[in-house]
Amino acid sequence: MTGSAAIARPATNTPPPTATLAQQALAYRFDALPADVVELAKQCLLDWFAVTLAAADDPLVRILASDAEEEGGKPLATLVGLGTRVARLQAALINGAASHALDYDDVNMWMSGHPTVTFTPALLAQAEGNRVSGRAFIEAFIAGYETAGRAGWLVAPGHYARGFHATATIGAFAAAAACARLLGLDAERTATAFGIAGTQAAGLKSVFGTMCKPLHAGMAARAGLSAARWAAKGFTSRGDILECAQGFAATHSADFNPERALGAPPNDFHIRNNLFKYHAACYLTHAPIECVKALRLNHAIQPEDVRAIRLKIDGETDKVCNIQQPTSGLEAKFSLKLTTAFALAGVDTAALSSYSAANAGNARLARLRDKVAIDFQSGWPHTQAEMSIELTDGRHFEARHDSGVPESDVSRQGDKLVAKYRSLATPVLGEAKAEALLSAVQRLEALDSIDDLLAHAVR
Amino acid sequence: MTGSAAIARPATNTPPPTATLAQQALAYRFDALPADVVELAKQCLLDWFAVTLAAADDPLVRILASDAEEEGGKPLATLVGLGTRVARLQAALINGAASHALDYDDVNMWMSGHPTVTFTPALLAQAEGNRVSGRAFIEAFIAGYETAGRAGWLVAPGHYARGFHATATIGAFAAAAACARLLGLDAERTATAFGIAGTQAAGLKSVFGTMCKPLHAGMAARAGLSAARWAAKGFTSRGDILECAQGFAATHSADFNPERALGAPPNDFHIRNNLFKYHAACYLTHAPIECVKALRLNHAIQPEDVRAIRLKIDGETDKVCNIQQPTSGLEAKFSLKLTTAFALAGVDTAALSSYSAANAGNARLARLRDKVAIDFQSGWPHTQAEMSIELTDGRHFEARHDSGVPESDVSRQGDKLVAKYRSLATPVLGEAKAEALLSAVQRLEALDSIDDLLAHAVR
Repeated sequence: MTGSAAIARPATNTPPPTATLAQQALAYRFDALPADVVELAKQCLLDWFAVTLAAADDPLVRILASDAEEEGGKPLATLVGLGTRVARLQAALINGAASHALDYDDVNMWMSGHPTVTFTPALLAQAEGNRVSGRAFIEAFIAGYETAGRAGWLVAPGHYARGFHATATIGAFAAAAACARLLGLDAERTATAFGIAGTQAAGLKSVFGTMCKPLHAGMAARAGLSAARWAAKGFTSRGDILECAQGFAATHSADFNPERALGAPPNDFHIRNNLFKYHAACYLTHAPIECVKALRLNHAIQPEDVRAIRLKIDGETDKVCNIQQPTSGLEAKFSLKLTTAFALAGVDTAALSSYSAANAGNARLARLRDKVAIDFQSGWPHTQAEMSIELTDGRHFEARHDSGVPESDVSRQGDKLVAKYRSLATPVLGEAKAEALLSAVQRLEALDSIDDLLAHAVR
Repeated sequence: MTGSAAIARPATNTPPPTATLAQQALAYRFDALPADVVELAKQCLLDWFAVTLAAADDPLVRILASDAEEEGGKPLATLVGLGTRVARLQAALINGAASHALDYDDVNMWMSGHPTVTFTPALLAQAEGNRVSGRAFIEAFIAGYETAGRAGWLVAPGHYARGFHATATIGAFAAAAACARLLGLDAERTATAFGIAGTQAAGLKSVFGTMCKPLHAGMAARAGLSAARWAAKGFTSRGDILECAQGFAATHSADFNPERALGAPPNDFHIRNNLFKYHAACYLTHAPIECVKALRLNHAIQPEDVRAIRLKIDGETDKVCNIQQPTSGLEAKFSLKLTTAFALAGVDTAALSSYSAANAGNARLARLRDKVAIDFQSGWPHTQAEMSIELTDGRHFEARHDSGVPESDVSRQGDKLVAKYRSLATPVLGEAKAEALLSAVQRLEALDSIDDLLAHAVR
């Protein structure tokens, strides 16, 4: 019992978390899903294809694909963007790592991580070639997404704070839930799958900045897929891994909140709280960029007319993305001042190519960058920014943005995602295939087989 | 930094643990190894084949092998006992799980776990077909074993106490070290491999009693093998995963002892502290069994002449293996009283078949069982037993045994292991193949290729 003393056990009137999560994951029926929830699932999937395609030539994908080739395997599952097929568990691992390689994928604050990259690669890997309909896929997708939110919230915030990367660990439960739903497991076997996934769940924040961070998404996908498959075949584990003594929560967090986790999130679905990234930089630079964009467009500000920029933002961002004089593209992604300058000068903050050594070293952008003064706030919302811009003619404008608030207009969000998708997918696939994949995702609930997606997702 | 406050950082004069462990693992040269250390490596390997062969038909092996068959893969690595070949990473997983399935494999108290099952499956999987000599195999074997002891001791006892199964977690580092040595990685890439292994390291004690416990050995083997292979190809991770802020130690233990871990263990090699199991029951029943065996043989005690048996043993065993009236073979393995009765009645405690429902329900054995009174001691060595036997004629004998002390005579230990090996391997392989494999292990340092082992390890 060592180490579990700090865990609040569920009160007797709280249902057992693992078994309840399993039941909840299996309960979704396409016909009962709200239309916007279906739309959001398709948006998450489209965004997943966009960021995965854009990473197709990333060195980490090359290493993992080469290792899989050495292993061999039945070529049943497509490596997105590459056009080669590998074995299903290999595809879950590699597509998962690819989709998180650029750190440009979606985020959920309740999960404390990146939801879609954990279960989507597992679902696609297992579904391909098995005549899985778009509707069945959406049901499993929602099972994965909602489990990510619930399981994450069960152990938040102490889990992430202790050093675990929730994308890796919570992601294993999300992938297990999605695959259990896809494979038609009952609630008891789904809880067992959680047990098998939970004892595989691993991933440390301390490896951030290395290829191991994106690997975590692939690890989650593979662990969850294997857990569901093995549970289907009779492999045993315990059915209460989340809450048992020295179980996942006790060993991995100081927090344990079953009543909140098993109840409804704000707006009833975790996927309604999904946050997309529209800028290819650290998520904490997004609110300042949105402030600048709004001011620039509303007031037709010219960069050369700017005298000073003052940014108010949470002090915690100082540790994450406050590189003063970035010299590389990667450093540029973690510089509040330079990304603000990018947005002011009209550099496309959504394009991967904008984050280059050339732009980091550009003298005009550097002058703008150095006009930004940051006023760090204590205890602010992590994702909120306030900005004031003073022009040389004395005029003064202010803006505020919170990037932790999802877009309220799902349709407008869809338009923004299509633009992001096209900018990332078209260079990889070419326009014809990129548009065909876009169309297939938009018609997902009408597809007889999700193979229609993957046929277009290759070069 | 949350959660790492309790971790004592290494003093400035202590070398960095991860880099040092990597250097130490790579330093072994066959010609410089003491003869008894080489002999012990061969004994561990022989014992590994014995327990793995005996589990060839275990249901968990069947499930994992069937899943691997669905995946496909280049048939390069032998499934021990089965005679089928699978892909290398699949073999590491499946042979690892098989070798821990009976919980009859060796133990190291410094590691807080089972060392040999973690790295041996990885080594065999990667070495097969690659003309790896017996000497090179032994060097890598020692690298794996010693890393298990060192990395385990680095975070003992808090790591296991918190709920982590060291066989799974520490095992990943051991397998990474062994495979890094086999693949010829340099120290820097080996430290990177530790980084990749460390972020994959997972396994919870709470799943003990399910198929997930043996799975942990396979998970360690696969994680370590993939970590070394990916590091060899340029996959990145940090090189200080054990000691960094929110690294493996900080997230997984309240203890961190670099000076002890990086120094020499008692008798200079961790493998000299290896403990073999000679009874197919819980390790904590071993000392009482040895006491009974000694008394019975030394004094020619007949079971029907026994009036009372008093066993003094550590109180912690009460929670582990004190089932009063076992009814199944599995329960018999966790009954101090019944295993004591087995030993007194001459039931073969080494044979898997002795732990049967029939023996558990045997009336004569049950009468003997109920003559055992246990006197639990507080704060005793976990592995120590004292026993007194009183006969109906008034005579009285006493014995003491500590199963935590390795056999001092390596040659005598070898004889005992050969007997264990034959009882487990011969029924699976038949006598000719079992003897051929035994002979190959005994000549290991003279083999041009370890394929000579695997050729005999199949039905």
